[in-house]
Amino acid sequence: MPKISQKGQLMPESPIRKLVPYAELAYKKGKTVYHLNIGQPDIKTPQVALDAVKVHSLDILAYTRSEGSEEYRKKIAEYYKKNNIYVSHEDIIVTTGGSEALLFAFGSIMDSDDEIIIPEPFYANYNGFSTASNIKVVPVISKIEDNFALPAIEEFEKLITPKTKAILICNPGNPTGYLYSKDEIKKLAQIVKKHDLFLIADEVYREFVYDGNEFYSIMQEEGLEDYAIMIDSVSKRYSMCGARIGYLVSKNKNVIKTALKFAQARLSPPTLAQIASEAALQTPQSYFDEVIDEYVKRRNILINELEKIEGVKVAKPNGAFYCIAELPIKNADKFAQWLLETFDYNNETVMVAPAAGFYSTPGVGLNQIRIAYVLNETSLIKAVKILGEALKVYKD
Amino acid sequence: MPKISQKGQLMPESPIRKLVPYAELAYKKGKTVYHLNIGQPDIKTPQVALDAVKVHSLDILAYTRSEGSEEYRKKIAEYYKKNNIYVSHEDIIVTTGGSEALLFAFGSIMDSDDEIIIPEPFYANYNGFSTASNIKVVPVISKIEDNFALPAIEEFEKLITPKTKAILICNPGNPTGYLYSKDEIKKLAQIVKKHDLFLIADEVYREFVYDGNEFYSIMQEEGLEDYAIMIDSVSKRYSMCGARIGYLVSKNKNVIKTALKFAQARLSPPTLAQIASEAALQTPQSYFDEVIDEYVKRRNILINELEKIEGVKVAKPNGAFYCIAELPIKNADKFAQWLLETFDYNNETVMVAPAAGFYSTPGVGLNQIRIAYVLNETSLIKAVKILGEALKVYKD
Repeated sequence: MPKISQKGQLMPESPIRKLVPYAELAYKKGKTVYHLNIGQPDIKTPQVALDAVKVHSLDILAYTRSEGSEEYRKKIAEYYKKNNIYVSHEDIIVTTGGSEALLFAFGSIMDSDDEIIIPEPFYANYNGFSTASNIKVVPVISKIEDNFALPAIEEFEKLITPKTKAILICNPGNPTGYLYSKDEIKKLAQIVKKHDLFLIADEVYREFVYDGNEFYSIMQEEGLEDYAIMIDSVSKRYSMCGARIGYLVSKNKNVIKTALKFAQARLSPPTLAQIASEAALQTPQSYFDEVIDEYVKRRNILINELEKIEGVKVAKPNGAFYCIAELPIKNADKFAQWLLETFDYNNETVMVAPAAGFYSTPGVGLNQIRIAYVLNETSLIKAVKILGEALKVYKD
Repeated sequence: MPKISQKGQLMPESPIRKLVPYAELAYKKGKTVYHLNIGQPDIKTPQVALDAVKVHSLDILAYTRSEGSEEYRKKIAEYYKKNNIYVSHEDIIVTTGGSEALLFAFGSIMDSDDEIIIPEPFYANYNGFSTASNIKVVPVISKIEDNFALPAIEEFEKLITPKTKAILICNPGNPTGYLYSKDEIKKLAQIVKKHDLFLIADEVYREFVYDGNEFYSIMQEEGLEDYAIMIDSVSKRYSMCGARIGYLVSKNKNVIKTALKFAQARLSPPTLAQIASEAALQTPQSYFDEVIDEYVKRRNILINELEKIEGVKVAKPNGAFYCIAELPIKNADKFAQWLLETFDYNNETVMVAPAAGFYSTPGVGLNQIRIAYVLNETSLIKAVKILGEALKVYKD
């Protein structure tokens, strides 16, 4: 029998996926499972986006341009303008989700064995995209004690080698919820310019910024035009993860020209999803105001409730809808499995994402979990209560 | 300024894309351009598919399972059964177009610098996917004199090295229109088993088979279960290229398990497109009968008209909706550009795809073009007439 590739063997499994069979077991036993593990928001998609595909007048569901239609990209540029980001439609390629934008960016700027520095914990699929692209992730550890702020620039400099091609950040961060300050972005700008690296920023949670903080995009930083590559997506912004529409944005013409060749090979991003996503740009500000209010409320409840549990340490998030919590346990992988397999509190339990999967340094974050606050208030309170009860009886 | 990657530099441009500025110039001059270059059918998408998204009742456009829903995959398995292909839904991963299925297959079975043998001329984007995957295409030349039949098995064996991991065919072929016989598939089965290689077949044109010929899938070949990987797509079958839904199908559990990890990294295929594609499975047979009749009529007209032109040699296609024609010229790249830039016949001209882009051996196919017969009868006759008039006056 012919063998699968080394790359295929190295491809990581999703840190949550491993738990799915245990969750299914819990359902079978009739347990209610509260999902603190997933990034699929329960917020409704804007009606304007859902309606747009209902009234389509297509008689052929044809390809679009590989980079997305000029009309759609011009509207995206308008959206950015409202967010103080000044780009032209020619700086934008519409992709099949932020995932594809990241793959195009990796392919455009990195060859086999090249290195990319990423502050960890980071979005677990960065590992998968790196393996798929034959590149090496070099992690720089950010700490729960600092709320996962940007590590000192010296820590980055220590890791730069001739193979280093880029630094990648997620801002606001999944899984940390940390929002980088303008000052931190400026520090990153300095270091990439000094060492001639690209700075890739995954800014898909741009709208989810709390407590009056201001979001500062790498695209706003003057002098960074040739270095900055922004990854974006409609998934979280409009709660339309299933659309699979993202953007790669850069003012570096070579990057766009190269990424376009990857885009052309796969012909076109999905057409129906582009119709919905183009319409989503008309979403009124009131939608976002309500959503942000809801997330702030949830975050406050979550943090309050978690802090009531003895031995739990939480990094307070300023953005996105995740937080990392350190638990008074040794191994969150085992704990998460035990929660589903063995534990119940009045026949209810919780599913959490062990944080080790968000680190690439082995042995780090073993006692941490990521919580996505994408449940309503009542469920959130119940879920944290269950977590607390579980910790009272768990032994590892 | 940081540099783009070698891979990015090597990524090929679409052979047609280079001509687009010249086509735009022709439009500006007020010329009518008949497009013989594109694979976007003018056939209507089945109404059942277009309607399905109009009546959706989603209030959150959420992710689906990374491999597609169990329900949808079970229906796909039913579709295959009707086509004498016996697979379970567990052998199927729903992908974002056939493109992504091919990328997942390449990633799952090949590492950097591994080799894949492909009869040429072949679908030009195989070059792009190979470059993106750091693998090397090893072409084996099939000839217009043989209607692009399978090259002798000795020709394949000469090219097999320890780096060879797979043979890839497109059946029926884009750009050749050639339909491999059962006997040819059996020969390929023998060679991959003998040398422990995978056999990947891109069977997206399965339904487009003419003149009473029977399509024989690699999935029908007994004993090939561990070796066969089928690439499929709804794009051409239901004239819904813009959906971006494809499938990777294999009975090799390791392949599916590995490909699933690539699928999980990108989370989900597009949800709206899956709704349309699932509904498309209800398309009545009469739709296909009409479409096939239409393509046979077009093919016959095209071949008849082309054969009237002195010096033109055509390989008669038995499937898909392409053919390769050899013209009495030296360089089809220049000719195609000249058709758009300089030539007109009553203010009309044609756009053709130079075939050199479908070969990876340099210098082969320079005097050939690919014609897609996706125009209606009247336009097709006009287009070939214009091509004939152009050849009368063209000098290279």
